[in-house]
Amino acid sequence: MELPALITTLRSALESDTVPLLREQLIDVHPADLASALVEFETSDLWTLLTVFPRAEQAKVFGYLPPEEQVNLSIRISRRKLAPIIRQMPPDERAALFHRLSDEQRETLLPALAQAEREDLLRLTAHEQGTAGSIMTSDYAILATDLTVAQSLESLRREAPDKETIYFAYVVDHHRKLIGVVSLRDLILAPVSMPIIELMNQDPICASVDMPQEEVAALIAKYDLLALPIINNQEQMVGIVTYDDAMDVAEEEATEDFHKNATIGKLESSVKDASIMLLYRKRVLWLVILVFGNIFSGAGIAYFEGTISAHLALLFFLPLLIGSSGNAGAQSGTLMVRALATGDIKMRDWGALLGKECLVAGLLGFTMAAAVVGLGWWRGGYDIAIVVAITMMFVVMVGSLIGLSLPFLLSRFNLDPATASGPLITSIADVAGVVLYFSIATWYLGL
Amino acid sequence: MELPALITTLRSALESDTVPLLREQLIDVHPADLASALVEFETSDLWTLLTVFPRAEQAKVFGYLPPEEQVNLSIRISRRKLAPIIRQMPPDERAALFHRLSDEQRETLLPALAQAEREDLLRLTAHEQGTAGSIMTSDYAILATDLTVAQSLESLRREAPDKETIYFAYVVDHHRKLIGVVSLRDLILAPVSMPIIELMNQDPICASVDMPQEEVAALIAKYDLLALPIINNQEQMVGIVTYDDAMDVAEEEATEDFHKNATIGKLESSVKDASIMLLYRKRVLWLVILVFGNIFSGAGIAYFEGTISAHLALLFFLPLLIGSSGNAGAQSGTLMVRALATGDIKMRDWGALLGKECLVAGLLGFTMAAAVVGLGWWRGGYDIAIVVAITMMFVVMVGSLIGLSLPFLLSRFNLDPATASGPLITSIADVAGVVLYFSIATWYLGL
Repeated sequence: MELPALITTLRSALESDTVPLLREQLIDVHPADLASALVEFETSDLWTLLTVFPRAEQAKVFGYLPPEEQVNLSIRISRRKLAPIIRQMPPDERAALFHRLSDEQRETLLPALAQAEREDLLRLTAHEQGTAGSIMTSDYAILATDLTVAQSLESLRREAPDKETIYFAYVVDHHRKLIGVVSLRDLILAPVSMPIIELMNQDPICASVDMPQEEVAALIAKYDLLALPIINNQEQMVGIVTYDDAMDVAEEEATEDFHKNATIGKLESSVKDASIMLLYRKRVLWLVILVFGNIFSGAGIAYFEGTISAHLALLFFLPLLIGSSGNAGAQSGTLMVRALATGDIKMRDWGALLGKECLVAGLLGFTMAAAVVGLGWWRGGYDIAIVVAITMMFVVMVGSLIGLSLPFLLSRFNLDPATASGPLITSIADVAGVVLYFSIATWYLGL
Repeated sequence: MELPALITTLRSALESDTVPLLREQLIDVHPADLASALVEFETSDLWTLLTVFPRAEQAKVFGYLPPEEQVNLSIRISRRKLAPIIRQMPPDERAALFHRLSDEQRETLLPALAQAEREDLLRLTAHEQGTAGSIMTSDYAILATDLTVAQSLESLRREAPDKETIYFAYVVDHHRKLIGVVSLRDLILAPVSMPIIELMNQDPICASVDMPQEEVAALIAKYDLLALPIINNQEQMVGIVTYDDAMDVAEEEATEDFHKNATIGKLESSVKDASIMLLYRKRVLWLVILVFGNIFSGAGIAYFEGTISAHLALLFFLPLLIGSSGNAGAQSGTLMVRALATGDIKMRDWGALLGKECLVAGLLGFTMAAAVVGLGWWRGGYDIAIVVAITMMFVVMVGSLIGLSLPFLLSRFNLDPATASGPLITSIADVAGVVLYFSIATWYLGL
């Protein structure tokens, strides 16, 4: 059912008091679609509509609601009503919700959970945000080392309803140390009496609980994994991160880099839902910092006031030259930032790329100089044309090299290179452009 | 084994003529790691090292090699030697390779494949690049409608070695029309005598072969699917797209948007491998276009030469004011471009966002004006301070509104909004900044 039709169905059920009928009517609708439709309703109506479904379905739909809406419901719906849903949520989603609640709100909800769930939740939420530990789930299938294939299959069958995935099972010793991984595919193909220890892959790819979440996502993408086992520093298995969570992380990281590229702070919620003050705060700091960067360009111009007042025609080319410097810088900076983020290039590639960039920037600078030399002649005569063409060659090259180097420099000092390109590079390239332009003009025009 | 150690092992095997021993020695190394190590070698050594492994392993490693390296090997290795590897590749990877070969190269390789593989390959490569059809694989498991759970499991067990995934199987009627999907998890939990038709989900999420690949990736991410069935316009099932291919598409699309944001054309290969002329071509067009955009700023300045020569102090603030306009524009443009790309906002949200952006930009403009008013006083006195503060308020607001509107406008005309932000918005905001600044100055200073 398309989203508008679904919303209409829900709305008319509310109006005609036939909400209980929805349970049968919407049995084949995917929980993600139900969640998309439910956010269009007020909290109380949303709750009425949500609770018509079976408990397990409610937890699924709740998990697909936007985080802000989950928090909103957690605050406005009584503990007694909400607890059954929270209890049915997968442990990683439950932990993510708790991370967003205030201490007081957590205190209210915790007693509603069973002892085991409470301990699991506290363990999961203990990990720092942005690490493997903060996105892993504790619902994974483990197998003891002494099982056969038949016993393993029986064990998975028994545990299947409670596990996030049974397509991979992890073989652990009696200290819970991870010693192997086996896929359900291998299990159903293997002879039933084969010992699991012979079938398993003995060198499973795994990650530490402290690994940054973007590296976890990159590992899962690189090795095409369904799930990545997570171990603590005693090599004990403590959770898994599944491919769908890795996809969410990759999208979140790409968005964050994209925003940083325009010097916007990390936005936890969507642009649509973010408050005016939040958007203001995420943008104002860099705008102010960059203003002070531009003061250097202004000072550069002021320093050359003599040259400018002697040749006011030079001003015509100012935006064009500093703009080209900034644009060339933004291009090479963006190429580097994304290539560093995807692991396409490493720090040690800087030298090789520098040589190549010099040649590319030289060609670009030459093309740009050719593109503007006629304009220089027409507006300011022969001398101005020469100054503009020489300056263009230089500023495109200097801008490109700033754009290439800044991301590496930031990486070197463990800062996020994504902050580097866009406005920051443009501002630095602007200063260089102003100084180069008027220095060349002053020298060539003999002032 | 870490990458440098792996490369050393391979190199010393080559030098001491002990390559055949590698087969045993590297049995537990992941094919993705082997591929990363192999690209460090010359083609002939790469081939020597690759062919020491079992056939199936060779095909896996080959699939993990960068596309350029695959093409390079396809051209330089004889058909007789290469064919067995190509035959073992998953159909989607094989089709992707063929898409990159010239017609002549395809003609050379095709006869080496068996009839069925050839037909499958021609079917897969017939789909336009960038659609679901071009990234799907034909190795999926299907089940007939009249099977029981036990028969289905037996069928999957038989087919497992050849299929990309057996964790989901698709139930099709005798016209190959997709009528349901069943997971291996549900199969191993269900009573063995249950008819498959009762167990299956009767309303599977599927996509058409023509759907753009980024929408396919978004569907898989939204519904947390392992694989998405692809149907033709007769509703017949023709393939599946798996989650790992969707992750690759999502990364590729994010990279493309990131690049477009700095007005860089679509780069098929990595920055490291791209030739100098390719990088030049992908960058030069927009640089030249933007130069001509900057001419308008230059013309604006030239128009106000009278005002400028009367108050040269105004020039000090020029970079600062037009820079702020561009930066504010880049920020709001980037927020919109990414939110449109992730489906976070839709075209119809423009009105609501406009109102919010006016308030955010107003606050930002006010803050920025306050930040520079003192500077204006110090450099140019009371009158200049007023002009600079008023201009700052306006340019930040105008820049932000340009940044907000341009991505929507491009979407409206079916152009990619990712081209919108960064340098393009900055150039447009620059012109607006110049004109606003000197107009306000001319008016306020009574010139």
